[in-house]
Amino acid sequence: MTPAARIADALQSRRHILLLNHVSPDGDSLGSTLALARALWARGRQATVGSADGVPGMYRFLPGSDRVVRDIPEGAGVDAVVFMECSTPERAGGLAVRAAGVPLWVNIDHHVSNAGYGDLILYDPGAAAVGELVYPIVQALTPRLDAAAATCLLTALMTDTGSFRYASVTPRTLAIASELVAAGAHPAEIYTEVYENRPPAALRLLGMALSGLVVCEDGRVAWTAVTQQMLRDAGAAMEEAEGIVGALRALGGVQVAVLFKEEEPLTFRVSLRGRGAVRAHVIAEAFGGGGHAAAAGFTAHGTLPDVVARTLEAIRRELGAAAAS
Amino acid sequence: MTPAARIADALQSRRHILLLNHVSPDGDSLGSTLALARALWARGRQATVGSADGVPGMYRFLPGSDRVVRDIPEGAGVDAVVFMECSTPERAGGLAVRAAGVPLWVNIDHHVSNAGYGDLILYDPGAAAVGELVYPIVQALTPRLDAAAATCLLTALMTDTGSFRYASVTPRTLAIASELVAAGAHPAEIYTEVYENRPPAALRLLGMALSGLVVCEDGRVAWTAVTQQMLRDAGAAMEEAEGIVGALRALGGVQVAVLFKEEEPLTFRVSLRGRGAVRAHVIAEAFGGGGHAAAAGFTAHGTLPDVVARTLEAIRRELGAAAAS
Repeated sequence: MTPAARIADALQSRRHILLLNHVSPDGDSLGSTLALARALWARGRQATVGSADGVPGMYRFLPGSDRVVRDIPEGAGVDAVVFMECSTPERAGGLAVRAAGVPLWVNIDHHVSNAGYGDLILYDPGAAAVGELVYPIVQALTPRLDAAAATCLLTALMTDTGSFRYASVTPRTLAIASELVAAGAHPAEIYTEVYENRPPAALRLLGMALSGLVVCEDGRVAWTAVTQQMLRDAGAAMEEAEGIVGALRALGGVQVAVLFKEEEPLTFRVSLRGRGAVRAHVIAEAFGGGGHAAAAGFTAHGTLPDVVARTLEAIRRELGAAAAS
Repeated sequence: MTPAARIADALQSRRHILLLNHVSPDGDSLGSTLALARALWARGRQATVGSADGVPGMYRFLPGSDRVVRDIPEGAGVDAVVFMECSTPERAGGLAVRAAGVPLWVNIDHHVSNAGYGDLILYDPGAAAVGELVYPIVQALTPRLDAAAATCLLTALMTDTGSFRYASVTPRTLAIASELVAAGAHPAEIYTEVYENRPPAALRLLGMALSGLVVCEDGRVAWTAVTQQMLRDAGAAMEEAEGIVGALRALGGVQVAVLFKEEEPLTFRVSLRGRGAVRAHVIAEAFGGGGHAAAAGFTAHGTLPDVVARTLEAIRRELGAAAAS
């Protein structure tokens, strides 16, 4: 019996299954818990999807997202908990306490940082999304996938792979996507809901940030800033700066992209993206921050020119180390 | 025998096959001709890939692209021509004349506008890319697909579907993509080559255009302009404006996106994108332009405010017609 079949088997004999998203839930976590809940509902089980941080607006189109709860009462009779994409149980945020004393813990993840907790574990760091791991469980529970579950799972796959363009994409990712589209999921509609629903202020802010783009270190470093003044001019909130540092990836030859966000006067949140041999987290760690090689961040105090100068110095050190490696 | 098998059969008995791209070749056309040429080379045939407009820089990573010619000498002994994604033979540009007198014409296309010419026709408007149609021909010629041909075909599929996110994507598109990745193609590398190699000037120009974004008609219309002054300020050429009108799609609720490009003083090239029931070509036709419902364009003379006012008037008419439909 495969781990997926074992999990399907264990869940369908339970009375009330609690499916937990991680804090700041993404499309992969939400799509996966909702698809699995749907399959359990179809089998007549009680299943509750929990998300301590609720459902971000861009994911409210997901079928069943209106039934996601931020908390459940004690004594709800939960006899199984599924932790979705939670490297530790604590990643479920305030809802983690609801798992205490529950007899069956299921841990489904694809992050190398997973702590290996739980009674049943479905862990595959080679999966591009946990949606890939949940798909066979859903199939085992409901052999005829409905369009709503297919939409949830395709959202999981698309959002965790940048629409099938990350290095994590395998033949399996695309084969599953093919079956999900055959079952009634529409990639164009999902893409529109998730990525094409931005307010004009967000696009104006992106525009201002890109207009002020600076490229230095022989084209290896690109940086820009979002100031409080720019937010006022664009009529935008700082959340709308999401995606700006990613947009700098479109530049050829850039190894480090940096966005300086003025959180308040003399305080900047600095987001870093690394490419190739450059380790973004090493740069961030010099300022007490962290992350991975591809994406990291830290907070720094001072004027913008001062923070920029100190950051560029740390970047130059890492570029030297990367070149020597 | 399927049309694909019939074409494979007909081509492998020829001496010299000329594979023609359309003018302003895209990733689908170039990837498809190069994959087919590769399969013919593997079968010991002489095959020449022609592109009257050469190979744009972003597609020079395609294996074999260095062998693409802009013209071939008369008397090169061509005994078969393949027109790739050419609705009429003339779409091959200056190279179309090299097909005169050639005994076998093959026409492969997925555009509804195809004129149905040629001795062998492989036409499927349900294909998301001609790469989908060429794949079975390549398979028939070389059952074991090599990584280079897989890269060419995956580039065809990815570039014509915006990385698998357009409404044209079917289960077949993704199933073929899965097989291409299994054969050694890397979506992340293709994406980086095609979309993440832009010069800083292009990003700055995009930034300026987005900063000047105007949204009107209750959020249904978004427009911006690229002027000669902006090109000078950004250090960019007008080609770098490619993609700006597409970036406006990120706005929620927008039904028509418009970009006004100042080609020369008092002359604007106007690009339109339509969503939902709006037909962009109807708007363009009012000014003597053309296109499809999703993308159209025209040229107009006058000052920017004047051209904008006239365009918005035509858009309002089409919005009214779309609302009434």
